[in-house]
Amino acid sequence: MRVVVVGLGLIGGSVALAARERLGAEVHGTDPDPETVTRATARGAIGAGDGAGDVDLVVVAAPVGQLHEAIDAALRTWPQAVVTDVGSTKGALAGAGFGPRYIGGHPLAGAAVAGIEHARADLFEGATWYLTPNSETEGVLLERVHRFVTGLGATPISIEADEHDRLMAAFSHLPHVLANVLVSQGAGALGAETRPVVGPSFRDATRVAGANPSLWGDIYAANGAALAKQIDGAIAALEQVRDWVRGGDTAALRAWQQAAADAGGRLADQGVAGGPTHEIRVIVPNRPGVIAEIALALGRAGISIQDMSLRPESDNRSGEIALWVTEQHAEQARALIDAAVAS
Amino acid sequence: MRVVVVGLGLIGGSVALAARERLGAEVHGTDPDPETVTRATARGAIGAGDGAGDVDLVVVAAPVGQLHEAIDAALRTWPQAVVTDVGSTKGALAGAGFGPRYIGGHPLAGAAVAGIEHARADLFEGATWYLTPNSETEGVLLERVHRFVTGLGATPISIEADEHDRLMAAFSHLPHVLANVLVSQGAGALGAETRPVVGPSFRDATRVAGANPSLWGDIYAANGAALAKQIDGAIAALEQVRDWVRGGDTAALRAWQQAAADAGGRLADQGVAGGPTHEIRVIVPNRPGVIAEIALALGRAGISIQDMSLRPESDNRSGEIALWVTEQHAEQARALIDAAVAS
Repeated sequence: MRVVVVGLGLIGGSVALAARERLGAEVHGTDPDPETVTRATARGAIGAGDGAGDVDLVVVAAPVGQLHEAIDAALRTWPQAVVTDVGSTKGALAGAGFGPRYIGGHPLAGAAVAGIEHARADLFEGATWYLTPNSETEGVLLERVHRFVTGLGATPISIEADEHDRLMAAFSHLPHVLANVLVSQGAGALGAETRPVVGPSFRDATRVAGANPSLWGDIYAANGAALAKQIDGAIAALEQVRDWVRGGDTAALRAWQQAAADAGGRLADQGVAGGPTHEIRVIVPNRPGVIAEIALALGRAGISIQDMSLRPESDNRSGEIALWVTEQHAEQARALIDAAVAS
Repeated sequence: MRVVVVGLGLIGGSVALAARERLGAEVHGTDPDPETVTRATARGAIGAGDGAGDVDLVVVAAPVGQLHEAIDAALRTWPQAVVTDVGSTKGALAGAGFGPRYIGGHPLAGAAVAGIEHARADLFEGATWYLTPNSETEGVLLERVHRFVTGLGATPISIEADEHDRLMAAFSHLPHVLANVLVSQGAGALGAETRPVVGPSFRDATRVAGANPSLWGDIYAANGAALAKQIDGAIAALEQVRDWVRGGDTAALRAWQQAAADAGGRLADQGVAGGPTHEIRVIVPNRPGVIAEIALALGRAGISIQDMSLRPESDNRSGEIALWVTEQHAEQARALIDAAVAS
């Protein structure tokens, strides 16, 4: 397998290292900074050369603000390759009209430190890696990206791009925004000389405050629509609570606190359980997007596809797909797959 | 020393246990629930009898909503005692006109579990314990409470009641409110079937979501004025950020993220350092409130008074106070004390 990684920072460098070490892939890499390319080569993350010629897969790991241009360039430079990326928002890229050779990706992995010098081959071990196929996506390309991501040690989950951005806004970007609000409120509440006694609830809630300003400034903006909606929701909730607080409405406040306990419990219950693996084989029509539909249907139900194998029939009008899911999800997965194939 | 604890839940029960075990005090206790009194007696937290007669110190550990009435009753029932409490808001009680025998208190200690069965003699070990003396407070009574709190293993810090409530609103109550907002936004963002992938930032930020609904509903309301102001500040910040996010203003968002990093750094720098102890002796005029002024001035500067000893002169018009502070704060403390005595 020939792989090109565009952008050799922490994520790109780790993808390259993992692809070489874990998959035995031939990996080339590019970066606007020649020094970074030298260091990545010295670390053994990439081989010599620029990856000209046939390439199976390109991973674009450029900064959020440069992704659009870099994906576009990658699709033109490597016309045989499937191109994926690692950007933390997906809606705008999904709507950019890149065509069927682009499949968005987003690994939920990272570290407090940036740069090729902190890259690790095990960075994605056990991490969720979102993929955003759509109705244009060819099954064989989705399978290739899926297999690559699995090979890096991650768990791919297929999801619609907009749904991905909504979840990220609620479960990652809003927590970062609120952490910032908390530290600035805290700093503002201090008198000139007063020293705060910072308890665990404040420390926990502000751990990510001010993280990597240039990266996060761009992430907020890139997910603007979904994040603005989440912030509006938070403002509306705070206005309601502020009125209860000011009015001393303990009954409403207790009920609200209880509702939060219930919501927290529901979220905690959603953890995906593991278990033995079950193989599902099904004949699928050779129709664009059908594999993506299957992957998305399973992703929606929280069912992780642990492995995927696709084999076209000789008539070239259909093919057999084998999927591996956990035993406990086998029945539900079978029903979802049958529905997707029949639709 | 004779001590009465009013309300034998986790905090009251732990105060009683610690007072007996660590201070060798004679401890009595009351609770509206006879079963709780029986259990507290069985656990050895309190002795037999109701503490009628002379009592040095009463700790009111009733629920927030019942504190006012319970403090009032304690002041009438034990006319020789200094009365303190453990409520998490102090402004309203400070303004209730209880007179010089009431000195508000608030230990920053607790546990996820409630009730006398979880009480522990070491619950306050190393904890900050706020005290809210005022200009009416007699030095000898403040010293008594101070010594008691130190004896339980806690670090007393004197603070104005309103300042206390402002800090609590920013550093404890607002984090709880925002944790609730986050879980409900998260639950709302999920589709009917979607399972979230909850990352560490969300988990950290929502650890306290929905904590003890009846307790926290009351705490929010009790600190209504200060908390409403903090929520208003958070809403204003969120409206600003929402506009930047919607407008894609990455420069403003990066600057805001950087400001949060700076604020977080300033807060982290404020940790109170330890070190060897230094004794400061000073003659103070026999004027009500002077000891409180000294304690508050040191509290404002983040200087913990590790021990305090007061001895009236035979002329009864002045007295000597000895204070122990960390060596590193000795010079600053001396200046603050001189200023307070001279004022």
